[in-house]
Amino acid sequence: MQTRVIVNGAQGKMGRLACETINNHPAFQLVAELGRGDNLQQSIIDTQAQIVVELTRADCVYENSLIIINNKAHPVIGASGLLPPQVEHLQTLSAEKKWGGIIVPNFSIGAILMMHFAAIAARFLPEVEIVEAHHQQKLDAPSGTAMKTAEMIDAARRDKKNALPLKALIAGARGAHHCNVNIHSLRLPGILAQQQVIFGSLGETLTLTHNSIDRSSFMPGLLLACEQVQHLDKLYYGLEYLLAIE
Amino acid sequence: MQTRVIVNGAQGKMGRLACETINNHPAFQLVAELGRGDNLQQSIIDTQAQIVVELTRADCVYENSLIIINNKAHPVIGASGLLPPQVEHLQTLSAEKKWGGIIVPNFSIGAILMMHFAAIAARFLPEVEIVEAHHQQKLDAPSGTAMKTAEMIDAARRDKKNALPLKALIAGARGAHHCNVNIHSLRLPGILAQQQVIFGSLGETLTLTHNSIDRSSFMPGLLLACEQVQHLDKLYYGLEYLLAIE
Amino acid sequence: MQTRVIVNGAQGKMGRLACETINNHPAFQLVAELGRGDNLQQSIIDTQAQIVVELTRADCVYENSLIIINNKAHPVIGASGLLPPQVEHLQTLSAEKKWGGIIVPNFSIGAILMMHFAAIAARFLPEVEIVEAHHQQKLDAPSGTAMKTAEMIDAARRDKKNALPLKALIAGARGAHHCNVNIHSLRLPGILAQQQVIFGSLGETLTLTHNSIDRSSFMPGLLLACEQVQHLDKLYYGLEYLLAIE
Amino acid sequence: MQTRVIVNGAQGKMGRLACETINNHPAFQLVAELGRGDNLQQSIIDTQAQIVVELTRADCVYENSLIIINNKAHPVIGASGLLPPQVEHLQTLSAEKKWGGIIVPNFSIGAILMMHFAAIAARFLPEVEIVEAHHQQKLDAPSGTAMKTAEMIDAARRDKKNALPLKALIAGARGAHHCNVNIHSLRLPGILAQQQVIFGSLGETLTLTHNSIDRSSFMPGLLLACEQVQHLDKLYYGLEYLLAIE
Repeated sequence: MQTRVIVNGAQGKMGRLACETINNHPAFQLVAELGRGDNLQQSIIDTQAQIVVELTRADCVYENSLIIINNKAHPVIGASGLLPPQVEHLQTLSAEKKWGGIIVPNFSIGAILMMHFAAIAARFLPEVEIVEAHHQQKLDAPSGTAMKTAEMIDAARRDKKNALPLKALIAGARGAHHCNVNIHSLRLPGILAQQQVIFGSLGETLTLTHNSIDRSSFMPGLLLACEQVQHLDKLYYGLEYLLAIE
Repeated sequence: MQTRVIVNGAQGKMGRLACETINNHPAFQLVAELGRGDNLQQSIIDTQAQIVVELTRADCVYENSLIIINNKAHPVIGASGLLPPQVEHLQTLSAEKKWGGIIVPNFSIGAILMMHFAAIAARFLPEVEIVEAHHQQKLDAPSGTAMKTAEMIDAARRDKKNALPLKALIAGARGAHHCNVNIHSLRLPGILAQQQVIFGSLGETLTLTHNSIDRSSFMPGLLLACEQVQHLDKLYYGLEYLLAIE
Repeated sequence: MQTRVIVNGAQGKMGRLACETINNHPAFQLVAELGRGDNLQQSIIDTQAQIVVELTRADCVYENSLIIINNKAHPVIGASGLLPPQVEHLQTLSAEKKWGGIIVPNFSIGAILMMHFAAIAARFLPEVEIVEAHHQQKLDAPSGTAMKTAEMIDAARRDKKNALPLKALIAGARGAHHCNVNIHSLRLPGILAQQQVIFGSLGETLTLTHNSIDRSSFMPGLLLACEQVQHLDKLYYGLEYLLAIE
Repeated sequence: MQTRVIVNGAQGKMGRLACETINNHPAFQLVAELGRGDNLQQSIIDTQAQIVVELTRADCVYENSLIIINNKAHPVIGASGLLPPQVEHLQTLSAEKKWGGIIVPNFSIGAILMMHFAAIAARFLPEVEIVEAHHQQKLDAPSGTAMKTAEMIDAARRDKKNALPLKALIAGARGAHHCNVNIHSLRLPGILAQQQVIFGSLGETLTLTHNSIDRSSFMPGLLLACEQVQHLDKLYYGLEYLLAIE
């Protein structure tokens, strides 16, 4: 018997791809594609949805997440707009109800592995810089992934190596300084999303490169979340737990 | 008080660098630089060496290792000439004596991390190829590191994906086939030793690149082995245990 | 006034993109999208087309090209199925009529620059290998671009350096041997089309990398061909002439 | 008969390598290795040197160059300390005397090709960023090569594309802005000198990468300059003329 899934935020690029992916998977039945103006609560009740994939980017992610949990659907929350106290409250609520859910800031398994490896390598090779490149429609720099990678590197380093002082003939040459890691952001056509983490040591370098050329790279992670979320007994943060990398 | 160290095989490129590195380190005293024609056993007795760094490439590695252990010096064996039953016998002997030693096929911490990460990534991204590039004096292809990486990948893959059949308009285009991994070997000037492990998945790639430009890349691993070998109670294989990556 | 354009082979991936691109360009009017079963000659007469973009992959490219020229439309021939004597005959015919046309084996400006630079670099750095990577649906290996690059390199090299003999522990490790250049072909998901040309010399390497993530990379070259083809007085081979790189 | 060569500035890393290279070449005889305190003029007279390789880094490059020309030796000037009016005066002097010489800011043939190709590619692909990486002893950022590359790119671009405004969440993320090209400078151990010039266009990227792992990469260019300098009839700037790339 198929699991009934709603996609909320179905009109965006990611939403349309999610609908197509779930539609094509034998284990799932796409019971509703919702957008602005649709009533999420009513739709969960009407369709008896077991999972809601929440992909809206708006300010309503938190309210939507409450609705999903309170109406006994399992949330797979791909939106990035939640504040730390909101995450905490949703996790407390889910734990009380022993109710499975997952917040997924990044569905790409390749990107998660890159960050995981970066944190391990930083223990042995503390001198490191990050180069990330994205399409020109991306307005913020550095990317969220680059900043999170820098934070994970800094937390893992045993020798808290200070990066070199940011001397430069021209301001900006040595990049942005975040958590003692220099980050360099390129914005060019012909690239979707790319990140390099370059570790330098005596006579050698170790470079981790993730390159995403298509949003389809998020679909294996999305399916994994949908397959596992009903078997969880609290609200997890990040796909890492499901991957069981350790 | 300094630890007394002999370097056996001190005339090779690696040996000279090892002598220089140990000489410059405050914790160690280089008590002998031995080559062909020197008597290793006599030298251990005369110098009361506590550690022997064994870097000879010849057929005498096994005999030298026995001499080192039987004369109560701790062996750091960097040579690659040992056969599996020889390794096993040395390990049995060391275990009986509760005597610390280490065999190190690769002293580069960057290369060890690359292989370790490749084995983890292969569990999630089973489709992978290896490209290695070395200087033109390297006669064998693929490199030992590439073949070991392929073996680790294949052992870690849960889905035993067969690589595509090796169709090619021109023989060799799809590389060497080892443990269901295609390996491509480049031999060019301007490169010392380089390896890329490229994982491909839906819409994304994850690439691990190790680049060594100088034999000095082996020295941090050599020093780590010398620092730890006296505290071990058996003969370990590979630097991984000392790194405690897991 | 807009130039009237027919796209022949409009149902393929490339054809659909060509139609969309020409439709969206103010200088052009897409007057017909033809596929199998449509009558090309009749369509040229009916629509008074000035340009035909010929993208069929079938055996009929040569016949179609004759029809286009004889019916006084300018051909932009993107298909790769023409044999050398067919190309020659079409060029002779066009020259007699002083009629402009162009055969474009590769519409990507980046790929053309890569090959052009490879031929220049080979004069100074004769030792070189090629690594190309494509999606797994590509059945042939090496790619046509890789083989053409090798041919251009070999023609340009002043020192006809023989590549090293193809010694390998495992057959295929040293790649395919074409025009004294070793070519290595990877086939992985997550990649559309990629090529690296790696020149090695004493203490340095120079690498040319072309990466295509989307068929849209062919559109600037297609538009350039359509803009220029009416001003030509013979049938050119390759986009190089229009780029005027030299 | 061998050509008599003096190396001035023979004690630096580059100087020692130059002496070794000239010594090992059958066409040349190394007649003096000079350093601080040696008398260049007297040495030219005493040795009847035909060529002086000027590698001093000090403020005396200009005076030395005058001495070399006035004493009828051919200068190969590798030092970078000359100011534009000094270069101009040396060129005027050489032209009057019809005396051959060459100023070589960069002896690496790979680096020269990279810059040459960057200028060509910029005509067709105007959107570009530069990433350069060097060892941590290099104090200035961006590198001189990166800045010269940006200048050459900007001079060659037909569409004077302005780079995106330097918006950044963290200052420096978008790099240094030089001649409408963003430059990113990495400083890490395990790297000697590396530069990537990344051109982005619709659906594709073209990347030129130069990687130098050893100062030996300068020697083919040095020998080329020594072989040709006697046949020149004025003072050239840059190795490009001798390469005859065009």
